[in-house]
Amino acid sequence: MNVDPDLSALRGALEALEVDGYLIDDDASDSDQRYVSGFSAPDPYQTLVTDDGVHLLVSGLEYGRANSEAGADTVSRRSEYEYQERVAEHGSYEGTIQTIAAFCEDHGVDSIAVPRTFPTGTADGLREQGLAVTVETDGVVEVIRATKTEWEVDQIRATQRANQAAMATAEELIATADVDEDGTLVHDGETLTSERVTEEIEITLLNHGCGLDETIVACGEDGADPHDRGSGPLSADELIVIDIFPRDKDTGYFGDMTRTFARGDPGEEARRRYDVTHDAFEAALETVEAGVTGSEVHGVACDVIEKAGYETLRSDPSTDTGFIHSTGHGVGLDIHEQPSVSPVGGELEAGHVISIEPGIYDPAVGGIRIEDLVVVTEDGYENLTEYRIGLEPVAE
Amino acid sequence: MNVDPDLSALRGALEALEVDGYLIDDDASDSDQRYVSGFSAPDPYQTLVTDDGVHLLVSGLEYGRANSEAGADTVSRRSEYEYQERVAEHGSYEGTIQTIAAFCEDHGVDSIAVPRTFPTGTADGLREQGLAVTVETDGVVEVIRATKTEWEVDQIRATQRANQAAMATAEELIATADVDEDGTLVHDGETLTSERVTEEIEITLLNHGCGLDETIVACGEDGADPHDRGSGPLSADELIVIDIFPRDKDTGYFGDMTRTFARGDPGEEARRRYDVTHDAFEAALETVEAGVTGSEVHGVACDVIEKAGYETLRSDPSTDTGFIHSTGHGVGLDIHEQPSVSPVGGELEAGHVISIEPGIYDPAVGGIRIEDLVVVTEDGYENLTEYRIGLEPVAE
Repeated sequence: MNVDPDLSALRGALEALEVDGYLIDDDASDSDQRYVSGFSAPDPYQTLVTDDGVHLLVSGLEYGRANSEAGADTVSRRSEYEYQERVAEHGSYEGTIQTIAAFCEDHGVDSIAVPRTFPTGTADGLREQGLAVTVETDGVVEVIRATKTEWEVDQIRATQRANQAAMATAEELIATADVDEDGTLVHDGETLTSERVTEEIEITLLNHGCGLDETIVACGEDGADPHDRGSGPLSADELIVIDIFPRDKDTGYFGDMTRTFARGDPGEEARRRYDVTHDAFEAALETVEAGVTGSEVHGVACDVIEKAGYETLRSDPSTDTGFIHSTGHGVGLDIHEQPSVSPVGGELEAGHVISIEPGIYDPAVGGIRIEDLVVVTEDGYENLTEYRIGLEPVAE
Repeated sequence: MNVDPDLSALRGALEALEVDGYLIDDDASDSDQRYVSGFSAPDPYQTLVTDDGVHLLVSGLEYGRANSEAGADTVSRRSEYEYQERVAEHGSYEGTIQTIAAFCEDHGVDSIAVPRTFPTGTADGLREQGLAVTVETDGVVEVIRATKTEWEVDQIRATQRANQAAMATAEELIATADVDEDGTLVHDGETLTSERVTEEIEITLLNHGCGLDETIVACGEDGADPHDRGSGPLSADELIVIDIFPRDKDTGYFGDMTRTFARGDPGEEARRRYDVTHDAFEAALETVEAGVTGSEVHGVACDVIEKAGYETLRSDPSTDTGFIHSTGHGVGLDIHEQPSVSPVGGELEAGHVISIEPGIYDPAVGGIRIEDLVVVTEDGYENLTEYRIGLEPVAE
């Protein structure tokens, strides 16, 4: 890990809260901890940020790796604080609490701020040990994480390259499929299903060192629900939404991209909606630059879509057709993170990495979404996605 | 989800703590919440257990799916508790807290127990709203989860079937590899590496609807560290440890299996250690039945290994060679869960699903581990693993 994060905003928050340190107690599935500690481990460990540095508390099993890999200033083993003896005498829960309290004391800390997600069991236990525990409710680490370092942008770009390879695999399957009598796509003599395309996407990502929890390959009515992953046979003359959000297994950084394809003719209305979505996408992108708000970018996408005659959540908060989600979100160690490109989105800053992904949905027509990933710059954006936009699938 | 969990022990704990309900505030990465709610969602939701049922609080986006899929007795949308209005007036953090407080009040709950991992931000916020919040420190839901229903055992068995297919793929690659002049394994003209075998394992698991975060394919000295995933070329005349722990993508249940192979001759000492490990494995397995403690099962594995002249953590707590981990652990919605088959392991009960996985490690010789997954029965165990045990790899 080479994030080398700038934690000055966190130290400012600690000063405002009048506490000695900031403590995280989680495993590496917590991206804030992974970011602050520069360390990733499957089992819980603790990260303490003080004025004089970042301090890790890990199990003996993780000690060697933490010392060589973590970006922290000091690494301590639980055994330095008599963990085994405390657990033997007081049980696992109380022994762990006492060990963390001793670790804090060793670093001169008797008041801490903690993230909202900090375990209540640890918080209440430390309070009983005499530490003052205050929740930092603004999510200051999430805000710091929103602005990427050059190294982080490189990692996200690398994941997006893998994503492009996966999207090309999917597009080629659809482009080269045969169409049988009832309109079903057929590949290598077998019905081409969402599941089959998803599997090929996953295999391509594996070959590029990436994994993913889920992918969307949604045809026809499935695609009209932005959260439907899709299932079953793919058909000609229907819209097919493909949304891939892989994560690099080593670095933990995500990519994110969506394209919409149709074999044959999805109809004039579908083609019109595709063009409107594409226009909204371009208009939103052109609005992106440091100083503009996420809300303004979202507003521009809504303008285009409403002007073309479709509903948005702005024109009708209760609509379930039209543009029924926000324009984008931050992407990094989490797939959804700060900043927001939505009605509540604040000012964009250089180094923010955001998706731009307007869409138009209707069960009667299907779904359309077009999404790139970009990094905000002082005078615009750099697109981290290099992938053709077009409704008709093309084989390489 | 069809767990249909027996929550009477949880209700007993609530009575002992003199509280009205048990609240979980997490996403489906928290296995306790997934288990209790019978629901899985990527975004946070809340599960409240009271005397009269299990109650979910979800976003509007998840409402339809929660209603059709979840095992809960009632499902509420945040909008029923004026979520948007509260967030607009008080911000996201405070608005969410108020919504959860209103949901609790609606169910007649003004005192709650929460798991140790419950977010401190929510706990302290609810306390400010007047709710009494107590941490349930014994992990009662983990204890309930340790005893599997028949349906759960079937899910674990299904994942273990996928695991067997993946292990067979790996074994076949090693069995059919050529050995080049310097002893490196070569397959299809390319050096056979840990990474290549891992990739084939992952692809096989994908084909079976399973995913995994990591796999161990560790050769020679790599294999002597039980936590080393392994990397680089595989060699003949060396021990190769393969440990696969996949998770079914739909059900969330894990499998777990380890085998150790060697092409050519790993030497007399390695073969002796393999036989001792196999004997320890068999002896530990034969000890398993309801009423026996995990500690006793672990002790039997230690007996065999110590008698053969190797160290264990029992004979020398500071050893870094010999048998340097515990004999097993529970497996279910988490890869490591209750019960423990270790020096602190309590009484095994019918329905516990545990791994049995003794091993012997030494950088000078390499590592050996043999692992099956079994379900404890009243008079023994049922093995959920059907996979040959042998040092020499065999192609099907």
